[in-house]
Amino acid sequence: MARPPTDREATAEQLLDAAEELIRQRGAHEIAVTEIAAACGMSQSNVYRFFADKEALYAAIAERWFSELTEAMEEVVALGLPATDKMTAFFERRMTIKLARYAADPALFLSYLALGEEHYDVVSGHIDLAGHYLSVIVAQAMAEGHFAGRTIDEIVPLIDLMTVGVCDPHMLVEHTEHATPENVRRIVEVIFAGLGDRVEPRATLRLAS
Amino acid sequence: MARPPTDREATAEQLLDAAEELIRQRGAHEIAVTEIAAACGMSQSNVYRFFADKEALYAAIAERWFSELTEAMEEVVALGLPATDKMTAFFERRMTIKLARYAADPALFLSYLALGEEHYDVVSGHIDLAGHYLSVIVAQAMAEGHFAGRTIDEIVPLIDLMTVGVCDPHMLVEHTEHATPENVRRIVEVIFAGLGDRVEPRATLRLAS
Repeated sequence: MARPPTDREATAEQLLDAAEELIRQRGAHEIAVTEIAAACGMSQSNVYRFFADKEALYAAIAERWFSELTEAMEEVVALGLPATDKMTAFFERRMTIKLARYAADPALFLSYLALGEEHYDVVSGHIDLAGHYLSVIVAQAMAEGHFAGRTIDEIVPLIDLMTVGVCDPHMLVEHTEHATPENVRRIVEVIFAGLGDRVEPRATLRLAS
Repeated sequence: MARPPTDREATAEQLLDAAEELIRQRGAHEIAVTEIAAACGMSQSNVYRFFADKEALYAAIAERWFSELTEAMEEVVALGLPATDKMTAFFERRMTIKLARYAADPALFLSYLALGEEHYDVVSGHIDLAGHYLSVIVAQAMAEGHFAGRTIDEIVPLIDLMTVGVCDPHMLVEHTEHATPENVRRIVEVIFAGLGDRVEPRATLRLAS
């Protein structure tokens, strides 16, 4: 983010700024490439050099929207922390970013959410990436001795489901009173304590010996 | 529900049927008492005998919408089951009712949700009642020896937050693939195992003895 942008990158940013302004003005209604060209005083053919079609435009809008969240996930996963703290940071950092964006411009935030629902394909890539990073943290937890007798494929969807209240953007903004770092820490504590060693497999091992 | 309705009750049902038909046709737009009177071929003054104002109408619509869920909660709390099974049934029964209603008429379900958001006061009574019944189950769990060293006021909001994914109607219908009895059972297992005896208070007691 800090390095000086090239002319091409600066122009792409300008076009995406225009797209965001249209989203701010009109909500989740469809945006045409022609409108963005008009807003930037550019020829339509020039804009198509950046976004070959509407799908490419929406993908670029989504990528910019998610970039801060993606960077936060990458940073958290790279931290030298135990898995419990890392998982707490994983949910807390993303929650804080989403809440700050909502606070900065609630209507724009909701418009982006509505747009994401209509173009779920561009959102699902980010959700898959979040699932990947969560899996990396769960794998670290297992290497530290947590979740014995369980599999990543069993645990990750369950953690996803139990963190909806501090992760899903609709839930976050509808119930901001619940979206606190303290609650994130508590949920992660319950997850680690509650998904401790499974009792049955150990009992079976004992019977077999 | 099974006892024969009085004439007054039958008329109220007829008026609420008309209200539901308007919700089905128009979504969450405001409904006037006059429109319901017209739909039922009744005088406005007669309908006002049933619903003194728009707030009374919305309260009656909400009460009917929630009645099956309220009965399910009452039944579950009265069951002669251990608290773990009771909590599982508490979330599973309500989830099943909501999913069945969504499946029966998705558009109507979403219209009711939108209406509920616009008239949150009539919804909040049901949410408070659900919180009350959950507290009763948590109290039973404590009497059975679970959640030692913790308080109901600490546990109930945390359970609420960790069950959003199988409880909140928006989340249920957006991610029906996660809304399974198996997942409810798993979440309740994690909650009971994860909110087991707190370590610190026991250590403190030991130091004091």
